[in-house]
Amino acid sequence: MTAPLKVGLAGLGTVGASVVRLIEGDRDALTARCGRAVEVVAACARDPKKDRGIDTSKLRWFDDPKKLAVDPGIDVFVELMGGDGDPAKAAVEAALRAKKSVVTANKALLAKHGLELAALAEENYVALNFEAAAAGAIPIVKTLREGLSGNTIARVYGILNGTCNYILTRMEQEKLSFADCLKDAQRLGYAEADPTFDVEGFDTAQKLSLLASLAFGTKADESAVYVEGISSISPADLEAAEELGYRIKLLGVAVRTEHGIEQRVHPTMVPKDSAIAQVMGVTNAVTVDVDGFAPLTLVGPGAGGAATAASVVADIGDIARGVRTHPFGRKTSDLSAAGKAPMQRHEGGYYIRLMAVDKPGTAATIATRLAEQQISMESIVQRHRGTKGGADAKSASGPVPVILITYATTEDAVRQAIDAVKRDKVISGEPQLIRIEKNR
Amino acid sequence: MTAPLKVGLAGLGTVGASVVRLIEGDRDALTARCGRAVEVVAACARDPKKDRGIDTSKLRWFDDPKKLAVDPGIDVFVELMGGDGDPAKAAVEAALRAKKSVVTANKALLAKHGLELAALAEENYVALNFEAAAAGAIPIVKTLREGLSGNTIARVYGILNGTCNYILTRMEQEKLSFADCLKDAQRLGYAEADPTFDVEGFDTAQKLSLLASLAFGTKADESAVYVEGISSISPADLEAAEELGYRIKLLGVAVRTEHGIEQRVHPTMVPKDSAIAQVMGVTNAVTVDVDGFAPLTLVGPGAGGAATAASVVADIGDIARGVRTHPFGRKTSDLSAAGKAPMQRHEGGYYIRLMAVDKPGTAATIATRLAEQQISMESIVQRHRGTKGGADAKSASGPVPVILITYATTEDAVRQAIDAVKRDKVISGEPQLIRIEKNR
Repeated sequence: MTAPLKVGLAGLGTVGASVVRLIEGDRDALTARCGRAVEVVAACARDPKKDRGIDTSKLRWFDDPKKLAVDPGIDVFVELMGGDGDPAKAAVEAALRAKKSVVTANKALLAKHGLELAALAEENYVALNFEAAAAGAIPIVKTLREGLSGNTIARVYGILNGTCNYILTRMEQEKLSFADCLKDAQRLGYAEADPTFDVEGFDTAQKLSLLASLAFGTKADESAVYVEGISSISPADLEAAEELGYRIKLLGVAVRTEHGIEQRVHPTMVPKDSAIAQVMGVTNAVTVDVDGFAPLTLVGPGAGGAATAASVVADIGDIARGVRTHPFGRKTSDLSAAGKAPMQRHEGGYYIRLMAVDKPGTAATIATRLAEQQISMESIVQRHRGTKGGADAKSASGPVPVILITYATTEDAVRQAIDAVKRDKVISGEPQLIRIEKNR
Repeated sequence: MTAPLKVGLAGLGTVGASVVRLIEGDRDALTARCGRAVEVVAACARDPKKDRGIDTSKLRWFDDPKKLAVDPGIDVFVELMGGDGDPAKAAVEAALRAKKSVVTANKALLAKHGLELAALAEENYVALNFEAAAAGAIPIVKTLREGLSGNTIARVYGILNGTCNYILTRMEQEKLSFADCLKDAQRLGYAEADPTFDVEGFDTAQKLSLLASLAFGTKADESAVYVEGISSISPADLEAAEELGYRIKLLGVAVRTEHGIEQRVHPTMVPKDSAIAQVMGVTNAVTVDVDGFAPLTLVGPGAGGAATAASVVADIGDIARGVRTHPFGRKTSDLSAAGKAPMQRHEGGYYIRLMAVDKPGTAATIATRLAEQQISMESIVQRHRGTKGGADAKSASGPVPVILITYATTEDAVRQAIDAVKRDKVISGEPQLIRIEKNR
């Protein structure tokens, strides 16, 4: 019988405690599945005495995660501290140098330093596993890294942030404003006191950069991702989407284009009958478009202690089985730089919501400006005051909302048309632009 | 540089040709992802000269798959011949005995002889991978085997047969009969000339027995699965489902109960808002209920050359990387016998459609018989002639359809109530019973 795999855990919050619970929970099944026993033998946490609902009496305690990381008594270092710098980074580096495999749920660290850490893991012939860093319990890292080895991936996109999807779902279903939903999400613990990181798309961007690396062999690089959040989405947009056969989701999209890999995060109109449009509340989902067959979609919980711990334990299980893959699916020296998404060249359909001045010739002016940019329209809806959805209009003679859906065009063309319309002074306020992502 | 992994392919139909195409297609990417090159070097097929749209000029050809299986020039034997006996079985056994890893898409072989083949693979320290044997391109085998190592699985269920889902989708959307849809599916190549294996649920049962083994550690055993097909489903059932907030899908369900693991395949009412209900046409989907968090659902193409080949190549990739897991996720000696599903003890809600004799007291009789079995009703819909859905009624004074939805009860109670109602002679014809599967 092989000796048990000894785990040292840095960070004993909700996820860490769930990891201990899972490993201790059904030892025999885990041993049977991994071919050897797994034991948590040591931990590092701010307050060793805190009641976590788990038995921590047999754990050796460390004050310094770096010391835990290199302790001869552990085989695997599990990093659940979070943060894109030290102490997490220093501890992970120390563990890898000491030839310990590492499991981490730390997307921020990987999006910033994943490449150098992966190289360090390779040099030391150990694993650096991070299933839990993107989309919680959804096995998307394994699927991209191992499940689609022979395939050319055309696009990976998904709902990677439960907070945003929760807010958009409630805005849509209860016709609430962004601000009201955010407040409620904060009250219910679905959003942080400072929600910027989630609602402005940065969390999604970090996760996307990891998935893009696995799918396309790019170097994980958060700064290569174009990012727009959901704070500008209004109930009027959700209502218009509904009428036009779409839903609005905050998507992370990585797609192969003729100009390279385009990585972007933004509110997106998705067809109401697509798999991704059915995903409601805090649930996450990822769709992978593969050349040659219909897309794969994986749906599940993207956050929460138990869901995240499931992926952490699966990663530990692979190490117990002796499986070691390149962290990003191929040698770090085979990964290529991810160029910043050139959004002016982005091609796709657009939803445009304008507040048009209510005077003769306005519609003609708008239509002309779009035509000048060779933009074809799939639909135009003009709201008149008193009709449904016309509540946006400020007064009886004020501006009226006009909603345009374009066929595929370029971001550059749309921006130029909008600028021209602005110069014509036939609209008031800032137009709302939402990109459309179609099924292939 | 490690030497290339040499593959011998038995069976060069649509899937086999797609495997060659994938491996030859983007050699560099595959090599980068697997850490070593993969080459198809030999093949066995009925007609070596047939044009398959691939270059077969460099392949060494074998007439006998058993000879290919033990050829010293191959490292991996890929079995794509199909069939639950020889020559597939003999060839796979020969390969394993010769210490070659095996990749197969052959669900029939595994459902019948998987256990002994897995034992043989273990004895010889080689892999026996079969991602393509269940749900095509969906990485459900890997997810159950490796992705959820630490979790207690409560239920696995899914749409595992594209033919049935295609027929049910068209019956629902176009209000067609089963017979008409089947004819069309046959014309379009979605159903075989003899459709029994698909439409009567046997294909689903074979796949389910594999997933149950991975999820619950049971010995894969097709004969332990209770099986009912879709040929008795009528447009009236689909219409009633729609009105009551359900869809009808042919599901394979493996669930942990107090009486052991229950494996069953039958037409099932699923809530219209569940992820599985959104799956239309030939698409497959599998949902895994895990203790402690929201379910995981994987959706994708369940058949077709390219989709099946993707899973075959992923399995080959794992072998190239040196990954070897127990075929069913744990040692065969740790697997336990799967008892035949005791359907009388099955617990759940039921849809019951009866043709009630149109005379006073009929409704009271039916209600009494159900009450005698302690069955509570969620809803009762009685159709009167002339109303929507009443077209089933045979004449102005003939029987009228009555649709009952029960709360959770046992199969035994429902059967007894129905038998009593039959003895009372208040219904005509055979009642339709469809089990309801709820979200957890």
